Amino acid sequence: MSSSNQSVASQLRKLIEDGHYPQGERLGEEAVAEQLGISRTPVRLAFRTLEQEGLLKRAGKRGFMVREFTDADVHCAVEVRGVLEGLAARRLAEHGMSSQQREEFDFWIQKGREVLDKGHLVEEDIQRWIELNWNFHELIVCSAGSGVIADAISRNNHLPFAAAASIVIDKGKLSHEYRKLQLAQLHHELIFQSLVNGEGARVEMLMREHALIGIRYSELL
Amino acid sequence: MSSSNQSVASQLRKLIEDGHYPQGERLGEEAVAEQLGISRTPVRLAFRTLEQEGLLKRAGKRGFMVREFTDADVHCAVEVRGVLEGLAARRLAEHGMSSQQREEFDFWIQKGREVLDKGHLVEEDIQRWIELNWNFHELIVCSAGSGVIADAISRNNHLPFAAAASIVIDKGKLSHEYRKLQLAQLHHELIFQSLVNGEGARVEMLMREHALIGIRYSELL
Amino acid sequence: MSSSNQSVASQLRKLIEDGHYPQGERLGEEAVAEQLGISRTPVRLAFRTLEQEGLLKRAGKRGFMVREFTDADVHCAVEVRGVLEGLAARRLAEHGMSSQQREEFDFWIQKGREVLDKGHLVEEDIQRWIELNWNFHELIVCSAGSGVIADAISRNNHLPFAAAASIVIDKGKLSHEYRKLQLAQLHHELIFQSLVNGEGARVEMLMREHALIGIRYSELL
Amino acid sequence: MSSSNQSVASQLRKLIEDGHYPQGERLGEEAVAEQLGISRTPVRLAFRTLEQEGLLKRAGKRGFMVREFTDADVHCAVEVRGVLEGLAARRLAEHGMSSQQREEFDFWIQKGREVLDKGHLVEEDIQRWIELNWNFHELIVCSAGSGVIADAISRNNHLPFAAAASIVIDKGKLSHEYRKLQLAQLHHELIFQSLVNGEGARVEMLMREHALIGIRYSELL
Repeated sequence: MSSSNQSVASQLRKLIEDGHYPQGERLGEEAVAEQLGISRTPVRLAFRTLEQEGLLKRAGKRGFMVREFTDADVHCAVEVRGVLEGLAARRLAEHGMSSQQREEFDFWIQKGREVLDKGHLVEEDIQRWIELNWNFHELIVCSAGSGVIADAISRNNHLPFAAAASIVIDKGKLSHEYRKLQLAQLHHELIFQSLVNGEGARVEMLMREHALIGIRYSELL
Repeated sequence: MSSSNQSVASQLRKLIEDGHYPQGERLGEEAVAEQLGISRTPVRLAFRTLEQEGLLKRAGKRGFMVREFTDADVHCAVEVRGVLEGLAARRLAEHGMSSQQREEFDFWIQKGREVLDKGHLVEEDIQRWIELNWNFHELIVCSAGSGVIADAISRNNHLPFAAAASIVIDKGKLSHEYRKLQLAQLHHELIFQSLVNGEGARVEMLMREHALIGIRYSELL
Repeated sequence: MSSSNQSVASQLRKLIEDGHYPQGERLGEEAVAEQLGISRTPVRLAFRTLEQEGLLKRAGKRGFMVREFTDADVHCAVEVRGVLEGLAARRLAEHGMSSQQREEFDFWIQKGREVLDKGHLVEEDIQRWIELNWNFHELIVCSAGSGVIADAISRNNHLPFAAAASIVIDKGKLSHEYRKLQLAQLHHELIFQSLVNGEGARVEMLMREHALIGIRYSELL
Repeated sequence: MSSSNQSVASQLRKLIEDGHYPQGERLGEEAVAEQLGISRTPVRLAFRTLEQEGLLKRAGKRGFMVREFTDADVHCAVEVRGVLEGLAARRLAEHGMSSQQREEFDFWIQKGREVLDKGHLVEEDIQRWIELNWNFHELIVCSAGSGVIADAISRNNHLPFAAAASIVIDKGKLSHEYRKLQLAQLHHELIFQSLVNGEGARVEMLMREHALIGIRYSELL
């Protein structure tokens, strides 16, 4: 059944992300089926799904292994997201926003201000940020007028660290994370400013730079 | 068996591209299995593969339909390729080419000159161009130092008209097509020139513009 | 009198461009005044004008010398024009053209087609091209809505080879020059296409690339 | 004498910037000469200098008036600086920094940290910032390997608000200005990071965005 297939793929994805199946590990249908307490067919289908997503690689005849990611891979996955979200944002700036889209952007920007206005982060803010951030990015991608860009982004998002939603907020260093989110919020507001003013070239570059927050800014904040 | 699964997906892709299964058509496992003279399981797997590629969409419980593409979709698919190939080319310019890569670029550029130097096209040139063009693009994508960008491009390439290899050369208008290939060749040479000189920003923009040859230049040539 | 001052500066500029006063040559007020058959005051004023334009450099107490330009200088002057014209074109794409501006672009593009449609160049075409090309570039710069960009371009245009109008068409190689103008015409049409479609990022890059025709394309055509 | 000519032009520039001669005001040689207590010839020369810089415009036969600047003019002047400094930074990234240049960048970045590390601004910090900021920008422009870009920037810098050095720091709102400088410092560090990594396209866009701090960020900070 399709929904359970999806959920097997999700379970596997989570186990890989959590390091339960570490990078480079070989996965056999039978062993995984046993661990999840299901039959082999849905596991086989899920393996194929994760192979297409780039999380598993074929190893030997029927086997798979968890793909290993170098620093260059992680960096490229983030840059791929940057150029694709940049393309979506540029198209939106060139075609103009509807007043409803404008209100929705405004809504998520206000949500961001609410998180940050008190001057520090508490633990519940992490979930609030993840949600508003996801909605802000989704809004750009969905407003660009074609599912093709959204598809390309969502396929790339399966890679570890690639998704906008994969922003890592360290609970143990909330005061340090505060400055990162302050900057991410400023990026959101500059992106909105450019969209409102129809500045396509500028918003494309801002989206690209925004994607780099997770991997290039930590050493500077 | 994996290889036959792949080949069922390929067969289906071809039948869709050729319009045998037109856009919007519903496909049933049983009917397709019968037409191809195979059992239902490989068809089911191939359906899932093509769904992930974006060529099929779920319709109803177990059914699928051939996805319909608007002009905006085609345009976006080409732009997606442009920004991704642009990213690969920029990285290559920034990191520098090896002398072997340089020789390979030179080789495919010479091949292009050989096709065009006689001043007109003959029918066999079409296949020669498709091959050299594919190799030129592959070289850029593979030289960028990570499989992640290559994966993103190859997933997008499943969409109709998106792949660099999908360049359409009209056998009935060879003298008209000559000018298009002349321009594509000039693009290749400018891209190579930028790579040699380490001009990352320039080569990124040239790759993007190059991707548009199929959809934005016909009205001008 | 102001107009004669201007004309002394023009005369000097021409004499430098023609190589009558070669790069590196020292110029004295008295000698130049004598050669032009005028008094020293207008020569002194013209020297100051050309110093600000970057054509003369101070040498010693009251003297000047013709500035020497390296290949890097020429290259930079062309790139400066490219980024400034690119900025003007981007602004125009973002703000939208009036229907009158659109007609004027169309007019100069038609003029270009008329020059090229007969399939070869005759000597009178050179002057026709210089005129239509100048008007096309002027239209972009003047349509951008502020004299500031136009001023920056016109100051840079005093440098040798920097101006769009300085395109060199070799009378002795008209059949070779034909292909260069064909390409320049295609650039003009792509720029117009981008402006019509509000593609700011694209038109900026096309203008930059267009500026390079004089210095980077000769080896490829 | 040349040096005193320069100083008359400087005096006039200052009087215009301070609003002593407001925008739109007519200036006569005689009146200005009297006010400055000098003869008319150096005033006439200074008028011509400021005309070429774009600060004065001819009005009537021998007269001049202080040029009026619209918001669009100010915006364009800042964008002109952005694209020119962006060009210089891109060239530097593409050609690579010498280890001495790298040390100098590092030096001015450390100076910036020293200003900001204590967590607030005191009045003397304004002068320290202006100096380090000017040096940072000068370093980029002078490292680009040709005086041509530097000349174009310095000519544009005569316009009000255009120069990097014209950053306005409001003594009355030092706690508010602190955040602006914090962001400017982050820009400097990101620019340095891109230069070190040879990221030409990225550093060009960062320089452009950096130029906008004075006019587009105030509403967001």
